[in-house]
This record gives sequence, structure tokens and C-alpha cells, in this order.
Amino acid sequence: MQIKILGNGAGGPFHGRNYTAQVLQAENHFFLIDCGEGTQQQLFRHKVPYDRFQQIFITHLHGDHVFGLIGLLTSYCLKKRSKKLQLFSPAGLQELVEHTARLCGILFPYPLEFIEVDPTVSRQVFENKHVEVWTIPLHHRTACTGWLFREKPRLRNIRKEKIEEFSIPIALIPGIKAGAGLSLPDGRIIPNETLTVQPAAPRSYAFCSDTAPSEAVIRTVSDADLLYHEATFTETHREEASISFHSTARQAAEVARAAGVKKLLIGHFSGRYTDAEEHLAEARDVFVDTYIAEEGAWFEV
Amino acid sequence: MQIKILGNGAGGPFHGRNYTAQVLQAENHFFLIDCGEGTQQQLFRHKVPYDRFQQIFITHLHGDHVFGLIGLLTSYCLKKRSKKLQLFSPAGLQELVEHTARLCGILFPYPLEFIEVDPTVSRQVFENKHVEVWTIPLHHRTACTGWLFREKPRLRNIRKEKIEEFSIPIALIPGIKAGAGLSLPDGRIIPNETLTVQPAAPRSYAFCSDTAPSEAVIRTVSDADLLYHEATFTETHREEASISFHSTARQAAEVARAAGVKKLLIGHFSGRYTDAEEHLAEARDVFVDTYIAEEGAWFEV
Repeated sequence: MQIKILGNGAGGPFHGRNYTAQVLQAENHFFLIDCGEGTQQQLFRHKVPYDRFQQIFITHLHGDHVFGLIGLLTSYCLKKRSKKLQLFSPAGLQELVEHTARLCGILFPYPLEFIEVDPTVSRQVFENKHVEVWTIPLHHRTACTGWLFREKPRLRNIRKEKIEEFSIPIALIPGIKAGAGLSLPDGRIIPNETLTVQPAAPRSYAFCSDTAPSEAVIRTVSDADLLYHEATFTETHREEASISFHSTARQAAEVARAAGVKKLLIGHFSGRYTDAEEHLAEARDVFVDTYIAEEGAWFEV
Repeated sequence: MQIKILGNGAGGPFHGRNYTAQVLQAENHFFLIDCGEGTQQQLFRHKVPYDRFQQIFITHLHGDHVFGLIGLLTSYCLKKRSKKLQLFSPAGLQELVEHTARLCGILFPYPLEFIEVDPTVSRQVFENKHVEVWTIPLHHRTACTGWLFREKPRLRNIRKEKIEEFSIPIALIPGIKAGAGLSLPDGRIIPNETLTVQPAAPRSYAFCSDTAPSEAVIRTVSDADLLYHEATFTETHREEASISFHSTARQAAEVARAAGVKKLLIGHFSGRYTDAEEHLAEARDVFVDTYIAEEGAWFEV
């Protein structure tokens, strides 16, 4: 799994930062997470295959996370999309999209499915062959959910030299990858451990924007390999963070440390900051493995 | 008067083109014309004083002309705008903005005034000290109006050497600029023509996007100093232009020639074209003074 950052700004497009949107790639599946204004321009700029999304996950209905969605859906019309698109979000997104479409004369030539999720609990809301997606209850001033992407356990990896050594027929390989032993014509049984090696452990990515620091978040994202946590403010504006249900960079790092995640990405920087160097220093004081969600960067989960 | 181009693309953000939006500056007043997705990012990128707008003119409710508006209005909230903002458009804009604001929790701390215009006729809808704005009936597949900006006649320019020669008191200058003569203490009367020179003729700018070629447009924009006319297609796709109520570059040039305008700007290029060189060649065949509405360029009206 890897993620690409399309924007890391909160509020207006100040200092050239774009609005929140990320692409998660799991094997050959691409998911879009949040869709602030200009996301489709960012997808083109960064050469992401924007027509590969079959699921889009929206945290909440504030403009800096959702105002790019209707434009992307409209561009799919122009490109004559026919594949179904699933939109996951708290309540209200269907009304927003359908009302705008009606007023602006948009007829979607592809099926749109709206999946309304409960932002107060952690539940599995999607799965495919490779990943499960769970909600993360966030603590914001409007209904807001984070998204936890969990890879499913992989099949064991077969040792190539064993295929030759025992002349293993292709038909038996899926069974062996799933854990079976091998019965040879001479009656010997070769145990699975001899034929295969342990696959890479499943990875997980937790996306948490926007939220005040929260115990529920800590519980839900525990042990994630990579946590993205908003860090709208620095400690200088801790009071303002509290009033607006946002976090400081230090608070984001405290959440990462308490949850025992492996790495922390911070973003959603307020327009009052020219850059995020102070955020980074503040977070690394608490949690060393912190990185800025730089626009255009890919991060391995 | 001058205009700045913020985008010249139709449909999706293909080939790096941004959506339609232009800034018109008349003396020290700034007007925004259309507001496709990403307009506020473009305003920042091109260092336009985005908070100076008191009037925004929207041609129609298709996404590539209006999906950036709600984001801009929201950013004004963050910047604690208090000045009134007037929004001119065909019917539907108020419902679009207010419904989105309600669903997304936006409370505007500044007065928003919606002025619904009739897109089937040419009427004056706005004036200030320097300009009048008139509607232009366009011929599109939805209610769509162009905008004609007419400078008001300027006061005459006083000849500086005459101020000294006749020791003209400052208090008399406004009257002389307005056409008065000067009575000297010795009884002589100096006629206005001696004291002043003719000011520059009032200029006019006509903005026509989106539209099929139209006699009503030709009548309304006649003698404009600068005409912006959409040229979504080239003649290769003339049939498609007709079906979608758009124009080819040649048709835009034919409108310019028939209307007797001085200069033509073309834009709103379909995503199928990598660049607009063919559009330009095609238009110049008919109307030599044609220019591409290049993003970021200023054009004197």
C-alpha cells in the first residue's frame, strides 16, 4: 500500500497549498480520500489515473474536503464513464450532489452509490480482495469520520526452487499458498513450511482529518503502520485549535505515541503559517518518526 | 480597462488548462467574470487582489463556470469579509449557494446579494462611477448570459500648462474638466477648448461564453473594443459544436467580423485539443486581430 498527497492545506489556498485529498493505492486498486476544490486538477498534475477510482471516501462536508467532488463527478460524465462509483461519507453527501446536479443540469451516465456511514463508531464499511476499510470516529464540530485501511493477510509465498525440486503441478500452487502440504507419488508428505515462506505482514493506514485529540481515535488506530493526523495549528494557537475542534502538531504526535503507530504524517495546515517547519519540530519532540504530508509525495504504508 | 485570464479550458482540466474565469479591472475596481473550479487558487497564483471584488458575474450554471464560486465565498468567511458581495447570474444561483451553504454549515458573515438577470435580452444591470454592465443574450443549451462592460465617458483632460498660465484655482478644476470655460479677473473668458483636451474614448469589453454563433450577439457587441468569444471547437468538429450549442474558432471570428469589433480573444477550448494553435490559425483566416486567451495574460481593452 502507498498513499499520494494531493494537498495539505486547511481553509483557503494560501501559500500555494492545495486542499485535502489523498490517493491510496492497494495492489492495483486506487481509492480517493477527501476531495477539496481543485482535486481533479491535482490528479492530472500528478498523473494519477483518476478514472481508476471505484470508491471515494469523504470525511465530512466542510468545503475544504468536499468542494472538488462535484467537478470530478462531472468530468467523469464528459469522459463517458460507465463503471459504478461508490461514495462513502457521513449523512448529507447524496443531497449535496443530487441537488447540485439537478440545478446544474448534470445527468450521470454511470451508477452512483451513496453509502452513508455512522461517524460515531468504528465499523467495517467496505472490503475487496486486498483491503478492508473501517470508519474512525473523529471529534470535530460537524459529523466527521476518519478512514482506516487494513490490508488482508496475504497468502504464503511459495519458494521457487521447491517447485522445480518436487515438480509441483501448477494446479496445486494455490492450495500450497493457502497452507496445504504436498503428497509426493512415493508417499512422502512435504509440509507446507518447507515449501513456503511467511508473507509480508498486512499493513494499515489511518486517515484522521479533521479532529481534536481523541481517545476514540487512539483506540481505533492503535498499531497502524502509518497514521495521517491533522495538525492544523502549532502550540502557539492551542486555544484556537480547541475552540475549532482541531489539533496542534504536538497533540497529533501525542495521539501517535499513545496509539503506538509506526509513523506519523501531519497536514491540514492553517493558512496563517507560511510553512510547516514549526509543526514538524513540535511533533518530532514527542514522536520522532513524523513527516510532513508534502504535496505530490508518495508514502509507503 | 484591462482583463486578466485565469483559465481557458472547457470540460475537464485536461492539458493543464484551468476552468473559465477572468478578472476585469476598470480604474481601481475589480470584477470577477465566471468562477470555474480552482478560480481561487488561480487568483492567488496570479496575485490578483481577490478580496477587492464587490461584484461577480456568472454566465450560467454549468460546472466549468461556477463550481469554484462556493469555495471562494467560503474563503471570504475565513478572511472575515464584511463588505457586501453582489452576484449576478441567470436564475438558480441563489438556490445553489444557499443549499450548499446549509448542508456544509457555512454562515456568511457578509451580505450576499443575488441579482437574477434575464438571459434573453440585453439590459443594463449594474453601474458605478466608471462602468456600466449589460447582459448579452447568448444561445446555449441552458440559460446563459454574456456580459458587456462599457466605460462611461471620461471627463476632459485639463492641459497642465494652462493651470499655470491662468493661475487656475484648484476649486475650479472639476468644473473645467466637466466642460466649463474660465472667467479671468480682467473680464476675458477662456473657452473650455483652450483649457482642455479630448479624453480617451470610452472602451467596451464583451464576454461571450458559452454560445453558438448568434445574430443577437452580433447586434449586442457591435463596435466593442475587445470581444471574448468562446471557440470550444475547430471546424473539424463543427457538427459537435452545433449539437452542443458551442462555436468553432472560425465561427467566433465570423461573429467578430460581423459585429465590427476591434479585437477578438478566443478561449474555452475543448479537452480534446492539446493546444489552441489550430483554433488561432482558423480564426485569423477570417479575423486577423485574434488572440488566444492565454492563462495569466493581461489584455488591454
